[in-house]
Amino acid sequence: MALLYTLKKQVLEANKQLEKYGLVTFTWGNVSAVDRDEGIMVIKPSGIPYEELKIEQLVVMSLDGERIEGELNPSSDTPTHLYLYNNFPKIGGITHTHSIWATSFAQAKRPIMALGTTHADYFRGEIPCTRTLTNEEIEKEYEQNTGKIIVELFNNLDENELPGVLVANHGPFSWGKDAFSSVKNAKILETIAEMAYRTYVLNDNVKGINDFLINKHFLRKHGANKYYGQNDE
Amino acid sequence: MALLYTLKKQVLEANKQLEKYGLVTFTWGNVSAVDRDEGIMVIKPSGIPYEELKIEQLVVMSLDGERIEGELNPSSDTPTHLYLYNNFPKIGGITHTHSIWATSFAQAKRPIMALGTTHADYFRGEIPCTRTLTNEEIEKEYEQNTGKIIVELFNNLDENELPGVLVANHGPFSWGKDAFSSVKNAKILETIAEMAYRTYVLNDNVKGINDFLINKHFLRKHGANKYYGQNDE
Amino acid sequence: MALLYTLKKQVLEANKQLEKYGLVTFTWGNVSAVDRDEGIMVIKPSGIPYEELKIEQLVVMSLDGERIEGELNPSSDTPTHLYLYNNFPKIGGITHTHSIWATSFAQAKRPIMALGTTHADYFRGEIPCTRTLTNEEIEKEYEQNTGKIIVELFNNLDENELPGVLVANHGPFSWGKDAFSSVKNAKILETIAEMAYRTYVLNDNVKGINDFLINKHFLRKHGANKYYGQNDE
Amino acid sequence: MALLYTLKKQVLEANKQLEKYGLVTFTWGNVSAVDRDEGIMVIKPSGIPYEELKIEQLVVMSLDGERIEGELNPSSDTPTHLYLYNNFPKIGGITHTHSIWATSFAQAKRPIMALGTTHADYFRGEIPCTRTLTNEEIEKEYEQNTGKIIVELFNNLDENELPGVLVANHGPFSWGKDAFSSVKNAKILETIAEMAYRTYVLNDNVKGINDFLINKHFLRKHGANKYYGQNDE
Repeated sequence: MALLYTLKKQVLEANKQLEKYGLVTFTWGNVSAVDRDEGIMVIKPSGIPYEELKIEQLVVMSLDGERIEGELNPSSDTPTHLYLYNNFPKIGGITHTHSIWATSFAQAKRPIMALGTTHADYFRGEIPCTRTLTNEEIEKEYEQNTGKIIVELFNNLDENELPGVLVANHGPFSWGKDAFSSVKNAKILETIAEMAYRTYVLNDNVKGINDFLINKHFLRKHGANKYYGQNDE
Repeated sequence: MALLYTLKKQVLEANKQLEKYGLVTFTWGNVSAVDRDEGIMVIKPSGIPYEELKIEQLVVMSLDGERIEGELNPSSDTPTHLYLYNNFPKIGGITHTHSIWATSFAQAKRPIMALGTTHADYFRGEIPCTRTLTNEEIEKEYEQNTGKIIVELFNNLDENELPGVLVANHGPFSWGKDAFSSVKNAKILETIAEMAYRTYVLNDNVKGINDFLINKHFLRKHGANKYYGQNDE
Repeated sequence: MALLYTLKKQVLEANKQLEKYGLVTFTWGNVSAVDRDEGIMVIKPSGIPYEELKIEQLVVMSLDGERIEGELNPSSDTPTHLYLYNNFPKIGGITHTHSIWATSFAQAKRPIMALGTTHADYFRGEIPCTRTLTNEEIEKEYEQNTGKIIVELFNNLDENELPGVLVANHGPFSWGKDAFSSVKNAKILETIAEMAYRTYVLNDNVKGINDFLINKHFLRKHGANKYYGQNDE
Repeated sequence: MALLYTLKKQVLEANKQLEKYGLVTFTWGNVSAVDRDEGIMVIKPSGIPYEELKIEQLVVMSLDGERIEGELNPSSDTPTHLYLYNNFPKIGGITHTHSIWATSFAQAKRPIMALGTTHADYFRGEIPCTRTLTNEEIEKEYEQNTGKIIVELFNNLDENELPGVLVANHGPFSWGKDAFSSVKNAKILETIAEMAYRTYVLNDNVKGINDFLINKHFLRKHGANKYYGQNDE
C-alpha cells in the first residue's frame, strides 16, 4: 500500500505537469502509471481540472479492466492505456494529450521525420502515425481499438526506442519508465513536432538525417556507453 | 432580483475569463447571458477594460432592445447578441471576441473542417463561416444584420450541436447554456482553429474526418449515452 | 514645467508599456511625446533597458533637433521622430519598435491589407510600406531620411486616419494623440499584422474588405457619430 | 581565484538566463566562458536543470581538454566549446541551445539572410549554416568535429562580426566577449530567425538587404564611430 501511495503521488504530480508544460487545454490530457507486480494501473479521473485534482480522486484499475479503487469514472481513454500496458511489457507510465503541435501532425496524418539531433536524442527514428480506425472499430470498443492500432504499428518497431506515437485524427500518446518520463516524452514530442513543422515550411524538400547520426545521438543518451548527463542517471 | 445578481456575477466573471484564456486584446470581446423568464439580457458595457469592470457597470437590456439598467452604453455588438437570443431559443450565454486564430479564419472566409476528435468532441461538424453583408446591410442596423446572417446560416444547422460560428471579415461568436459555457466554447473554437491551421499547412489535401467518428466523439461527450466526465456533469 | 513633468511621466510609462505588451526584445523600441506649445519633444535615451529607465534619464529635444535637457544620448531614431512631429501637425506621440509581426511585413516589403473589422476599427485602409532608401539617403542623415520617406508616402494619405506605417527592411512606426495612444496603435498594428499573416496563409487569394465596411467600422469608433465606447471617450 | 569565482558567477547567471529568455526546453542548452590568461574554460555540467544549478557544480576545463575542477561531467558539447575558443582568439563566451527558430533553420540547412536592420544591427551579413558531418566525423570525436566544421566555415568570414552560426541538423552556437554577450547573441539570433521565417512566408522572393544598409546599421552599433547607446558602452 505504501507503494500504491507513492505511485498515486507520482500520477497526481505528473498530471499537474501537463499544465506546467503547456500541453493541455481544459482537461484534454491524462497520465497513468502501472505497478506490474500488483497488476494495477493508476489513472486520472475523467473531466476533473488538474488544479483541483486530489490524490484520493485517482482511479485504480486492474490490468484486465476492473475498477479497484476510486469513486469517479476513470479517463475515457482508460482502455487505450490498459491495452498499451498489456502489450508493451517494459513501459511504466503513459501520457495522452491533445497538445497543439503533435495533434496537428496527427490530424494531417503525417509522421514526424527525424530532422535533427534533438529528435535523435530521444526517438531512434521517425515518429509514426497510425492508420485510421474502421467504422466497426469506432463503433465497438473504440478506445481499446485505439490501443490496438498503436500496437499493430509497433509490430516492426521498438517501443523502448520510440517512446511515442501519433494516433491519426486524434493526438499523441507517449510513454516511459514511469509517469514523469511519459510526460517528459510528451513535452519532447511536442517540441520536436513544432521544430519539424517549421523545418518543413522552410524547406519542403528536407530529408531526414541518416541512421548514423540518429544512432550517435540516441546512444549518446540511452545506450550502454551513453555519456550525456551524470553517471548516476 | 437575487437571480439577476447571480446572472450579473456570472457575466462579470465570464468577461474576465476572456483575458485569462488569452482571447482578447484590449477590450475586443464581450460576454452576455440571458434570463428568459424575465426577458432580459446582461452584457458588458462598451470599451471598459476587463480588469476594471465592476458588477454595477454591467448593462441589463430587455430582449426587445431597451436598456433597463446601467448607466453605461452596452457593447456595440448588443443587437447581435439580442438577435441570437431571440432566434436560438435554448442558448443561455454568448461570447464574441476577435481572438487571433478564429478571426484569421473569419478573415479568410474559410470554414473550419472537422479534422480530428478534439473538434468532434465539441462541434458536431464543420464550423461554418457566414456570407459577407451587403452594403445595405452594413449601412443600416449593421449589428443586428450580423445576427441575421448567422441565423440565416443556421437554417439547416443545429445551433445546439454547433455552438459557434465565424462571421466573415469579422470574427467568432460562440454560445452555450450559460455565460461560462459560451466562453469555454470560444476557447475551444480558438484552439481548434489553431490546430486546423497547422494541419492545413502540414497537409493541404487533408480531408475532414467522417461522420462516424464525429458522431462517436460528439455523443461520447454530449449524447444521452455520454460517458466522458462524471455522471453528475 | 509642471506640464513638462507630466509629459515625461507619460513618456516613461509608455516606454515601459512596450515590454508589458510584448512589443520589444532588449531595448528595440522607443516612445516619444511632443509639447507643441513649448516646441519640445521628450524621448527615451538610447540603449537603456525599460525596467531600469528613470524619469530623469529622459531626453528633452527642441523640435529643431537641439538637446535641451538630459545627460544621456537620445534614441538613435530621434531624427525620425522629429521629422514626423514637424510634418504631421496633429500627432502627439510616436512609437517605434521591431515587433515580430509588423517587422516581418516590413522586411517582406508587403503592406497590410484591410482584411477585417479589427483592422478597420483603427486604420481606415491599408497600412502602407515605404520604399527603400537609396544609398545616398542611407549614407547621410539616415534617420532623418527615414522620416522623409514616411512623410513622402503620406502625401496622398491622411496620417490621422492611418496611425502607423511599415518602414521597408526596418520595422513599424505608429503615432497617436499622445504617447499612450501611439503605443496602443503599435500593439494594434502588431495584432493586425499577425492576423493578416494567418489570413494570407489560409487564403492566398484573399481580397481586402470594401470601403463601405472600412468606413462603417472606422467611423463607428472615430467619426463625429461614433457609438463605440462611452460618451466621454 | 577571485577572478575564477567571478567567471563562475557569470557562467552560472548566464546559464540561468537561457530559461528567462525562452531559449531552452529541459536542459537543452549550455553556456561557457574562458579565461585566456589562465588557459581555462568554465562550463555547465551535463544534464543539470538550470533552476537547480549551483556555482560549485560548474566544471573548469583547461583549454586542452583536461577537467581541472568539478566533480560532475561537463556538458557533452564541451569539445565543441574548446575547439571554438582555441580557434576564435577574441571570443570570451559561448552559448549553445536547441532554441525553436534557429534550430528549425539548422534542420532545414538554410542560412538566415540579412532581411532587415534588426539583423544588420548585430550580424554583418548572412548567418551561415555548416555542412553536414561525414559518417567518419560523426563516429570519432563527434563534438570536436562539430567545432571543426564551424571553424572551417569561418575561414572566409569574421567571427567577430558574425557572432553566431547554425550547425546543420543540430542547432545554433553563438558567442561574444563574455558569457552574457553570448547569451544575448543567442536570443538575438533566435528573434532574427523568427522574423526571417515570417518574412519568407510573406514573400518567398525576398532579397537580402544590400551591403550599404548592413554596414550602416552594423557600424552604427559596433564601429569606431558607433552612435547607438551611451558613450561608455
